[in-house]
Amino acid sequence: MFAIPQQSRRLILVRRPEGIPDSSCFEVEMAPIEPPGDGEVLTEISHISVDPAMRGWITDMPSYIPPVAIGETMRAFTVGRVVESNDPALPIGTLVTGQQGAQRYAVSRGSDLRKLPEGSSPEAALGIVGITGLTAFFGFFDVGKPIAGDIVVVTGAGGAVGSTVVQLAKLAGCTVIALADSAEKCAWLLELGADAAFDQNDADWRKQMRDACAAGIDILFDGVGGAALDSLLWQVNERARVVLCGAISQYNSAKATGPAGYLALITKRATMQGFLLQDYHDRIDTAEARLIRWVQNGKLKQRLTRYSGLDQLPLAIAGMFEGRNLGKTIVDLT
Amino acid sequence: MFAIPQQSRRLILVRRPEGIPDSSCFEVEMAPIEPPGDGEVLTEISHISVDPAMRGWITDMPSYIPPVAIGETMRAFTVGRVVESNDPALPIGTLVTGQQGAQRYAVSRGSDLRKLPEGSSPEAALGIVGITGLTAFFGFFDVGKPIAGDIVVVTGAGGAVGSTVVQLAKLAGCTVIALADSAEKCAWLLELGADAAFDQNDADWRKQMRDACAAGIDILFDGVGGAALDSLLWQVNERARVVLCGAISQYNSAKATGPAGYLALITKRATMQGFLLQDYHDRIDTAEARLIRWVQNGKLKQRLTRYSGLDQLPLAIAGMFEGRNLGKTIVDLT
Repeated sequence: MFAIPQQSRRLILVRRPEGIPDSSCFEVEMAPIEPPGDGEVLTEISHISVDPAMRGWITDMPSYIPPVAIGETMRAFTVGRVVESNDPALPIGTLVTGQQGAQRYAVSRGSDLRKLPEGSSPEAALGIVGITGLTAFFGFFDVGKPIAGDIVVVTGAGGAVGSTVVQLAKLAGCTVIALADSAEKCAWLLELGADAAFDQNDADWRKQMRDACAAGIDILFDGVGGAALDSLLWQVNERARVVLCGAISQYNSAKATGPAGYLALITKRATMQGFLLQDYHDRIDTAEARLIRWVQNGKLKQRLTRYSGLDQLPLAIAGMFEGRNLGKTIVDLT
Repeated sequence: MFAIPQQSRRLILVRRPEGIPDSSCFEVEMAPIEPPGDGEVLTEISHISVDPAMRGWITDMPSYIPPVAIGETMRAFTVGRVVESNDPALPIGTLVTGQQGAQRYAVSRGSDLRKLPEGSSPEAALGIVGITGLTAFFGFFDVGKPIAGDIVVVTGAGGAVGSTVVQLAKLAGCTVIALADSAEKCAWLLELGADAAFDQNDADWRKQMRDACAAGIDILFDGVGGAALDSLLWQVNERARVVLCGAISQYNSAKATGPAGYLALITKRATMQGFLLQDYHDRIDTAEARLIRWVQNGKLKQRLTRYSGLDQLPLAIAGMFEGRNLGKTIVDLT
């Protein structure tokens, strides 16, 4: 029989970062495990998802959710296994996903957790069929409104969401031009079906993109901001949709810069729109089922950048912001 | 009987401007009047509309229409009277509006012109019920999608389109906060029904706007860009609509700047969208009828900044870009 420990390791925020967060912002500490109350479950967390949104969560600025307080457990999406249950819907042994934070054990209301989809690995449940895939799905289909034949440009295309959008755009019959930040990522994106892929570290990436998008851009899916967004906006076609999924180049800057290319939105009657996955919760099941089917029949693939142990989470976060990840970044606690 | 002269005065573009265009960019010359061909009419132009779009028309950059060439008549919306007609739909004496250019006489296809609406003055036909009013109407209602109770912020509110949007927003049951660039304009906007009006020349206009929009902004109608747009974007509410009607602060800059505040679009799931009046031509009649009714029952008002004679058009254009206009700028050729 499994013995539940008295204490859990957890990663707490001890300092707000300037620039890219590093290990000095976090500390691992032991905390007592409280027994689950009515309707609650105790989960042993096995996998932590590393996401660009984490940067916003630790910044003390008004946003869509309050920031993680100093001394609090770092917010994170997780996969775990129920080890004690006061929720009949989630018996012991059930694999669940939710936002349980950077810790080994966590107590949550059962209703705040989701069972892992049938046959889905923890890595897929946090990635290609989880928040990554769902973010890509709703951003691309709902906000991007693709029409077969559209020219789609994806920035940050070597990341988790970007690489998923590249594949969704191919499934939707679009031409896809990817912008990433390493030759290795570009090679992988071509494997995934991108019609072209360019490295933003090349001195002439702007010209490469201009030439590749000579017929203009119908959908610009942007998670990067900064120079990439500014430069590409000047190439939008009439009625183009610019999907704002994030701005990873800006999260660690003291002073954000805006894209002068927004002026092209006027003459092109184009739209630039932000979105958050949380607004689509009533449609998660449908989207998840579709993503799972595409994964099962080989139409959607993900690659993982894997770290081991709670202590490595700060390194994993920094690695993602420095572009050292390929695809989805996961911290494995097992 | 009216004798048609042999020649017409016209204003031609002789030099592309850097910064705000001045009289050195234009010259008045005499040109022979060609007799109208089949389906064409000869018009004696009485009024010329002065619009921010003129700046784009004389810049040699790809845009929604080709630029005015050096040596060509300056492009302009006009009102005139038919003095010779080969179009049975437009007999001699008919007042017409169209894009006939900065000249005293012009030949156009009758089908490219519109009869002045019943009872409409030339100033109204170019302004509040013409391109100004229609731009405000489609931008505010179609792109802004107002709901009664929305908090609407209008930049450049003392201009032709801005002052119309302020009034439309009040008609739609919204709270309206206006940003203009003189105390005189602010006083007039309060007369028009704005709930508050602030002067962008005041050192603390940002704080004034922040305080006035403490409950956030649901619709930001922007024709200014630059610091105004950047600052106000940080205050958008969830699902806000940012209507891009122009960027008058940027048209005369060597290097455009972008709004860092676009980042707020992400967390607020807000939309920023450009539009052009020309896309709504199939719905002009309905909108025009509605604007005329509002003018007739006193719900919509316009003020004019009036210049006299073709020679004053460069001064009128510069005056508008320098913010010396109040409401609609018109050049009267009579």
